[in-house]
Amino acid sequence: MDSSRLPDAADNGLLDRRTLLRAGLGSAAALLTASAHGTRPDHMRQPGAPMSGTSPPATELARTAIQSQPGTLGSGASRTPLQHLDGLITPSRLHFERHHAGIPTIAAHAHRLVIHGRVKRPLVFDLDALHRYPIVSRLQFLECSGNSAALLTPQPADMDCGAIHGLISASEWGGVPLNILLDEAGIEPGATWAVASGADAPAMNRSVPLEKLYEDAIVALYQNGEPLRRANGYPMRLFLPGWEGNASVKWLRALQVTDQPAMSRQETSKYSDLDVDGNARLFTFPMGVKSIITSPSPGLTLGEHGIYQISGLAWSGAGRIRRVEVSADGGKTWAEAQLDDHVLDKCLTRFRAAWRWRGAPAVLMSRATDATGAVQPDRAANIEGRATGSFYHVNAIQAWAIDSHGAARNVYA
Amino acid sequence: MDSSRLPDAADNGLLDRRTLLRAGLGSAAALLTASAHGTRPDHMRQPGAPMSGTSPPATELARTAIQSQPGTLGSGASRTPLQHLDGLITPSRLHFERHHAGIPTIAAHAHRLVIHGRVKRPLVFDLDALHRYPIVSRLQFLECSGNSAALLTPQPADMDCGAIHGLISASEWGGVPLNILLDEAGIEPGATWAVASGADAPAMNRSVPLEKLYEDAIVALYQNGEPLRRANGYPMRLFLPGWEGNASVKWLRALQVTDQPAMSRQETSKYSDLDVDGNARLFTFPMGVKSIITSPSPGLTLGEHGIYQISGLAWSGAGRIRRVEVSADGGKTWAEAQLDDHVLDKCLTRFRAAWRWRGAPAVLMSRATDATGAVQPDRAANIEGRATGSFYHVNAIQAWAIDSHGAARNVYA
Repeated sequence: MDSSRLPDAADNGLLDRRTLLRAGLGSAAALLTASAHGTRPDHMRQPGAPMSGTSPPATELARTAIQSQPGTLGSGASRTPLQHLDGLITPSRLHFERHHAGIPTIAAHAHRLVIHGRVKRPLVFDLDALHRYPIVSRLQFLECSGNSAALLTPQPADMDCGAIHGLISASEWGGVPLNILLDEAGIEPGATWAVASGADAPAMNRSVPLEKLYEDAIVALYQNGEPLRRANGYPMRLFLPGWEGNASVKWLRALQVTDQPAMSRQETSKYSDLDVDGNARLFTFPMGVKSIITSPSPGLTLGEHGIYQISGLAWSGAGRIRRVEVSADGGKTWAEAQLDDHVLDKCLTRFRAAWRWRGAPAVLMSRATDATGAVQPDRAANIEGRATGSFYHVNAIQAWAIDSHGAARNVYA
Repeated sequence: MDSSRLPDAADNGLLDRRTLLRAGLGSAAALLTASAHGTRPDHMRQPGAPMSGTSPPATELARTAIQSQPGTLGSGASRTPLQHLDGLITPSRLHFERHHAGIPTIAAHAHRLVIHGRVKRPLVFDLDALHRYPIVSRLQFLECSGNSAALLTPQPADMDCGAIHGLISASEWGGVPLNILLDEAGIEPGATWAVASGADAPAMNRSVPLEKLYEDAIVALYQNGEPLRRANGYPMRLFLPGWEGNASVKWLRALQVTDQPAMSRQETSKYSDLDVDGNARLFTFPMGVKSIITSPSPGLTLGEHGIYQISGLAWSGAGRIRRVEVSADGGKTWAEAQLDDHVLDKCLTRFRAAWRWRGAPAVLMSRATDATGAVQPDRAANIEGRATGSFYHVNAIQAWAIDSHGAARNVYA
């Protein structure tokens, strides 16, 4: 099939999403010649490497933008290299990290979780005890509320997709539903919050409404099938689906049930949203509807002209993704992307769109809509009303410019 | 709530599946005392470990039963330690392996996939070319057809769950649908099979009906979000959802379209099923409906009497799991287990059941039914008619005996 006759769905080469599974693409494969076949490479002339206890990764992929704050030990962030991944799961070794005083080395057998405060029966749980309770296991995203803050700089930063947006990852999280543990402790009348604190050096703490703990929160013990990694809270962490990552307190050590939030450092001077009138919005927990194109993106350069697959991720703290649209002309026209088979609640959803690149400059964008009908805002709307220095909950549309050489860069469009 | 008053769903302590999310379990947590709270452990007195490029696992979990065949280099198997995992995803580093001549070290940029034989346009694809095609990404299991063969020994083997059943794993597999590539090559009239061969030293090959390649087969490039591990076929492998693992040829190098199967060594002397009359059944591709209890299981010992959570995995090559039943009395009575939220096509499904262990000996079993109505057979039915030495496609019900000390062992019940 001659790909130049494929119908467009939006300007600048975006093809109908049904094109994905129909079109013969012609240009990508090469015709077989005698020389390409028949010669066996050297690695077929001898047996390969033997068995071992674990399979190492095939590539040197690592997290990027590893930033430690000056004067601190281990306070900082590292980001998932989104531009090199596909699918919805983040390999656990590449899950983003955000620590306030590094990664504690906790002896799991000695660790305890205490539920106390306004409860009838203050309780202590060790890891063995928690394993006696029912476990639920779900594929869900975790996003730091400081993710994508680089989009607020006055000029577009020369950064790649992982460096800008890599504080988002998705895993299968398994753990004990908190409603069971709270019911066993017995909530006293009038209690409405719980203060969760971790076993890291600053005893990082956040206040969480009891309503969320009863809705879908877990004490997570497993990530992608195996016990949590130390960097993600081993032996146990709070996990609050769809809410800003900081509130999913790692190395969970205590839940103090209260009748008001603690107004701790991490929910007042940090993780609050200051507006231009000087008011700080507190407890903006759910992460907004959002999407990014991971390929093509800075560092991944297009080769010859022809059809490419745009691929990206969409998510919303409010639930499932309903649709994703993509644009190749900076937002003037939009085409609907195809969503992968697994469209899950509060999880990353992979979207794809076929795009014919004719060699002219283009500006690629994606725009997500979630099941509540919320639509991802453009950058201007997302910035409006913020005070200088306010940088949480950025979910603006990302634009990547493609130049005539096929190189991608971050732009404001 | 006094757990002794909970209603039973089957004999020997199996509780109603709705108990999972309702009952206060009382016995697992300890009441908080002053001494248990307030003392900060040493790891809270100093900052923890700094950021790095990747998160290492928190535990020393490794694959088990690493067997290389005598006189070979790297021919053998290693198994997933199922008894230590939870959820449905297998961490990629713990995915089972089965190699016929070790793990080749392939330079991805030099690797080629050739589609030839009875096609109109023989084609060559490199990794860059394949990335220009649409990718689909799905959570699905992979099982070696030699899995669970230890259940055929005359006496029950003293082995743990991973050693007996660990040739099963599940991942998110992402790759290019083969129907697109085959359509581009153009199948000639009368062609019905394709012979897939790998770039390992023996050029391991298997014949696959074209019908399956058109239905849901992919050339897999990604596993759990990242490029395939070398042990699982980097840079590309065939992936045939629900079919015996050996046919999902790793390090895929060629697909030769033909009008008949090759009758190669791996589909005649191996991977065929000999019956007592001396007939070999060939090409029994789909894996049968199956389940195993992963906890409790040998090596995981129960402690004090009380309520425990039975947890296990179920799967079927024919599609989704419809139900799983569990028994605590060796199959005399059965209770329905609860399935986790994600019940996916040709994927592992996690099931759970609450069980009150009063300290008496018990025999735990699980029995799966798939969406087609197929029910997992007991051991006698699964063995019947097999010739001595025939060991593929064992999907018999597994029984674990629990003794009065809480220890589990493999038994035939």
